[in-house]
This record gives sequence, C-alpha cells and structure tokens, in this order.
Amino acid sequence: MTTDDAATAHGHAGHGYLPEKDKFIRRLKLIEGQARGLQRMVDEEAYCIDILTQVSAMTKALESVGLGLLHEHMNHCVVEAARESDAAAEAKVDEAMKAITRLVKS
Amino acid sequence: MTTDDAATAHGHAGHGYLPEKDKFIRRLKLIEGQARGLQRMVDEEAYCIDILTQVSAMTKALESVGLGLLHEHMNHCVVEAARESDAAAEAKVDEAMKAITRLVKS
Amino acid sequence: MTTDDAATAHGHAGHGYLPEKDKFIRRLKLIEGQARGLQRMVDEEAYCIDILTQVSAMTKALESVGLGLLHEHMNHCVVEAARESDAAAEAKVDEAMKAITRLVKS
Amino acid sequence: MTTDDAATAHGHAGHGYLPEKDKFIRRLKLIEGQARGLQRMVDEEAYCIDILTQVSAMTKALESVGLGLLHEHMNHCVVEAARESDAAAEAKVDEAMKAITRLVKS
Repeated sequence: MTTDDAATAHGHAGHGYLPEKDKFIRRLKLIEGQARGLQRMVDEEAYCIDILTQVSAMTKALESVGLGLLHEHMNHCVVEAARESDAAAEAKVDEAMKAITRLVKS
Repeated sequence: MTTDDAATAHGHAGHGYLPEKDKFIRRLKLIEGQARGLQRMVDEEAYCIDILTQVSAMTKALESVGLGLLHEHMNHCVVEAARESDAAAEAKVDEAMKAITRLVKS
Repeated sequence: MTTDDAATAHGHAGHGYLPEKDKFIRRLKLIEGQARGLQRMVDEEAYCIDILTQVSAMTKALESVGLGLLHEHMNHCVVEAARESDAAAEAKVDEAMKAITRLVKS
Repeated sequence: MTTDDAATAHGHAGHGYLPEKDKFIRRLKLIEGQARGLQRMVDEEAYCIDILTQVSAMTKALESVGLGLLHEHMNHCVVEAARESDAAAEAKVDEAMKAITRLVKS
C-alpha cells in the first residue's frame, strides 16, 4: 500500500509517521539486531541475568518506537479527525485509546 | 563460553535455562521475525494503529521470554546459591531483584 | 478551582472528565480503601504473596482510572485544541504524550 | 494472624517482611494519602494532566512497595524453601513467579 493508498484508505493526507519512515525502519533494524544478539547469548550460554539485562534494553527500545509512532499518529491522524467531525474525532480517539491501553498493559 | 565455562564462571552446575536452550532460541527467532515484519509494515506504509498492535504483540512475546528465563534462573541459580551460604543467597537474590525491577519498569 | 475557573485556565469549556467526576471520585475512594486493606494485611502479618496479589489488583485499578481520565482528556481537551489552531494542537498532543509515557513507564 | 501463626501457617520462622513491617505500613499510609489527594484534585476540578501526573506517581510508589515485599519474600521464604527440599523450592519459586508476572503485567 503506497502513501496514496494509505491516505485514501484512512481518508486523509497520509499517516503521521511517513516523514519519519526511514528513522523508524532504522530503529526497528537495530531491534532486529538485538533479537539476534539475544539468540547468540543463549547459544553461547551466557549468564541468565546478562541475557535478562538485554531483554529489558530491547523492551525499552521497542516501547520507545511504539510511543514515537503514537505521537505521530496523534499529531496527524487524531488532529485531522478532530477537524473532520465529532463522530470522526470520537472514533479516532477510541481507536488510539485501545492502542494506548495495549502499550500500558504490555 | 560453553556449558562448563558457564558453570565454573558462576560456580554451579550450569545456568537454569540450558535444558530449554533451543526453545528460547526458537522464540527469539520468532521475535526477530516480528521485528522484520514491523519494518515491512512501516516500509509499506501500513496504518499506524496496525503497526502499534504488532509492537504490543512483540513486546508481550519478549516479556514472556524474559519471565521464562527468570523462572529457570530462580529454580536453579537462586536455589543453588541458597543452599551454598547465606552470603551467596543474599547476593543472588539482590541480583535477581535488580533484573525483576528492570522487567517491571520496562 | 471551580468548573468555570478550570475552563478559563485551560481556555475551553471545562475538563473532559467533569461529567464523570463523581464516578472517578467513587473509584478513587475504593482505591483508598484498598490502601487501608493492604495496611491491615501487613499489620495482621498476612502471607507476602497474598499481599502482593492485592498490590497488583490496586495497581490495575489505579491504571484504569488513569486510562479513563486520559480518554476523557483526549475526547475533549485534545480535540478542542485541534480545532483551535495547529500550535494549540501540537502543544496539547505533546503534553498528552508526556502523560502517556509516564503511564507506560510506571 | 500473629507472627507465630503466620510462621506455622507457612512452615517457617515468619514472613520476610516482618522486620520491616512498620516501614511498609508507613509507606502504605502515604499511598492512602495520595488516593485522598487524587479525590481532592478531581473534586476541585484540577486539570486532567495534573491528575494523571499524580496517578503515575502513586503507581510508582505502589510498585516500589510491591518490589520491596517481593525482595523480603525472596530473601527469606524462597531461600528457606530451597533449603527445605526440591519440592518446597519448586513450589515456592512457582508461586513467586506468578506474583512477579502479575507485577510485570500490571
């Protein structure tokens, strides 16, 4: 789905994160590398606590990508929906709150 | 560091997770795949909330690997230290509590 | 600060949670009761794990009050700011994201 | 249940937190006060974000009481069970892991 399809699919000028697309992909590549690093630690039988330290570091990196995406979404998609109509605003806020609740509870 | 080195480095019969080593590596491989999947979603300009749903799913998978490793560590390394001496028990519990605090706060 | 002052202080028709004000106070009263219940458990020397179970239950109750307040804030204060100006929208989203980050990291 | 009953109920020399009992009660009293403070903020129609800041502060205070209780439990109840038998150790670790999982997920 390219920027145009993405835009029309959600009825606005493209998702909030698109200007930062490459940055998010780079950060996710680093997280992918952390996952491989953890596999190596387990394979090389590293000490449990040292692996757990890396698990927490990777969780924080993932959390910050999530919060970054949410911030862009709020700044663009939620603000645009607010300007569109009460119904659009309420639907977009409900949707965002479900995502925020998942982030808080994960 | 092989099982023997790992054992001597921490003065006991090998880390708790070693019997489950392959399972942990498989789960971490799946998590690595989730990281690649997220990169694809961003690259294909998926809708923000759909990406956030996957971020939360990956966070939960990572959390459960962390809790699994901790459980093995408690069952083996902490129990062994408890049987060794008061000082060894206290040091191992302090170390485990630091890891637990990081898991709770990440 | 009454509803009117609250409204003028934040330049809009009152905070989002005001229609649900009594519900939030009732829920916070229950949480206050849980805090007293925990004191009783410690005073009566209840088993550690039983106390920890109540700590987690109280944490969840508090988290859900936080998410409820956030939802009302997003539905009213953030939507109103979005309709006011780009600058108002951005400031309100930034402020909300700081609160969301605290909720995710606590 | 007094210290003796608590001890016999769990087959050991009393719960880990007993030497710190008063400290935990004091901290829980502060948390009770925070709950009342939140009720006042809602009643006085404080700004949503200011209330959310206090909700996060109270959540952190509660979390740290939970981690403190867990630390005492691990240092005493888990270590004692480890010295008792393999079965006692495994049961106590399983029980602790369930409590840790609740803390991580709340």
